[in-house]
Amino acid sequence: MKINLNTSNKRETARAISIVEENNSRSAELMKNLFSKVGSAYRVGITGPPGAGKSTVTNQLTKYLRSQNKTVGIIAVDPTSPFTGGALLGDRVRMSEIGNDPGVFIRSMATRGSLGGLSKKAIEAGDVLDAAGYDFVILETVGVGQSELDIANAADTTMVILVPESGDAVQAMKAGLMEIADIFVLNKTDRPGSEQAFAALKTILMMKAHDENSWMPGIIKTVASENKGIAEVYDEIIRHKSFLEQKNLFLHNREVRTRTRIKQIVEEKLKAELWNDSREKSLNSSLEKVVLGNLSPYHLAEEILNSFRSH
Amino acid sequence: MKINLNTSNKRETARAISIVEENNSRSAELMKNLFSKVGSAYRVGITGPPGAGKSTVTNQLTKYLRSQNKTVGIIAVDPTSPFTGGALLGDRVRMSEIGNDPGVFIRSMATRGSLGGLSKKAIEAGDVLDAAGYDFVILETVGVGQSELDIANAADTTMVILVPESGDAVQAMKAGLMEIADIFVLNKTDRPGSEQAFAALKTILMMKAHDENSWMPGIIKTVASENKGIAEVYDEIIRHKSFLEQKNLFLHNREVRTRTRIKQIVEEKLKAELWNDSREKSLNSSLEKVVLGNLSPYHLAEEILNSFRSH
Repeated sequence: MKINLNTSNKRETARAISIVEENNSRSAELMKNLFSKVGSAYRVGITGPPGAGKSTVTNQLTKYLRSQNKTVGIIAVDPTSPFTGGALLGDRVRMSEIGNDPGVFIRSMATRGSLGGLSKKAIEAGDVLDAAGYDFVILETVGVGQSELDIANAADTTMVILVPESGDAVQAMKAGLMEIADIFVLNKTDRPGSEQAFAALKTILMMKAHDENSWMPGIIKTVASENKGIAEVYDEIIRHKSFLEQKNLFLHNREVRTRTRIKQIVEEKLKAELWNDSREKSLNSSLEKVVLGNLSPYHLAEEILNSFRSH
Repeated sequence: MKINLNTSNKRETARAISIVEENNSRSAELMKNLFSKVGSAYRVGITGPPGAGKSTVTNQLTKYLRSQNKTVGIIAVDPTSPFTGGALLGDRVRMSEIGNDPGVFIRSMATRGSLGGLSKKAIEAGDVLDAAGYDFVILETVGVGQSELDIANAADTTMVILVPESGDAVQAMKAGLMEIADIFVLNKTDRPGSEQAFAALKTILMMKAHDENSWMPGIIKTVASENKGIAEVYDEIIRHKSFLEQKNLFLHNREVRTRTRIKQIVEEKLKAELWNDSREKSLNSSLEKVVLGNLSPYHLAEEILNSFRSH
């Protein structure tokens, strides 16, 4: 498989991402061929609750990065419902706005079922964009599941977008978004209640234990639809990047994330070996006994494990 | 370990759940001793976005079940932030309201870190309540992560609570809540916009392909804080239960869920064996090479797998 990746050949990049999406031996081969070219791009994760304006922020930030002469690759992870099937509307609008810029590559990836697999594909697609030479790789995902944790685990800087609706900060806290945010973007601050939301968010952040060696996330106010506050978002990304470099955390954090990722690769392969036809069958044929209380699920699990160990 | 579980001994039940929370060999032993007593309770999962009124619905439904002379065990899964640490406020209020009823057992379980482990513990705590003899076991969780999928996977009937805010139905759809719901509860229908929200929800549901053999989720309107619509929620649970029994799906669904659960038990044990000290060390010592592009993550993963296979 010969793949010649660079920012001036979007078609080849798109083809590589399609191979990644197959998630088979061909994808594995591609990723093995790419790894030595991966690592130069700065990776930004963007997440937040539905309706917070993630796409709009991504859109405007991309335009700003282009004005700084940086190339941008975007992977937008769209959890969609099996009811509707397709990708969400926003993307098509965006495609026409920035997708024609030769320095921007944008690809939307929909779930169609399993979310876990999607994060893996999205992160590998980010690797493809990195290998192709894009200066910034943006991974965007809606913050309603596991995917935003996976995405945060693939980003150098993770931005959480919130809106000043009542309780949004509290909801984000409950959803675990507070823990993954390096930067908060409070979007749609032309709406009523934005000062209170800003104060609430600040209060919650202040409760977090921190010292001079730990990063304190900034809160940037934006009205992304009017392009307000976007330069400040960029400045905050650069401030975070500099902090990581100063504290020798940049490579360290990447190592920590690589560790998680390798563990996932190993575990996925092991699971595939574990659940072969024969063990699937022996599991299925014993389910009734377990449900009727005649066989302990823990005993059955042990039996399956033993069969794997002795194999 | 001698545990004598029944509904008239709350202290013993509480002790058993504390053992489950330890998630160690003692918990495993307890669950092995219990399994033959598990299976009589009807399990209801309750989930939905933060602020939808899950606790209030659970509270009122519990009172209604008590008026029908049914005993109720409740496990409330509270994803909390490491920032604040404690469980959420609502629970304490609730405890005093229904917690003193001898026919009600209520336990709140907080995340404190890993969500995956919590779901397992919550489901096992549900098993404890089942074994203790509670007629209904309610598993309640906020719908913002993986946990609600796990909870749905442990319930005979899963209820999704929504409020008539604009776009709530669409957000739930994005979050995958539509796929797990057997019953929709549209709560706070005294608010403006509730008729439109009802219609929107109905439209989305109608898009789902269905025939006479598939269950069509009902939408029940409630104002839980005023105890309105709760009898109808109960009736809908019973309607779903009857449907499952009529179509021979009751045990079948439990088998499907048991299958998932046993797979999780097996995989968890295998992972614990995989990541022993020596393999953790060899992973850690190679991370820098991977990050700098001198070693392929896929190659390293393969090395670790080989060491496990030959062990």
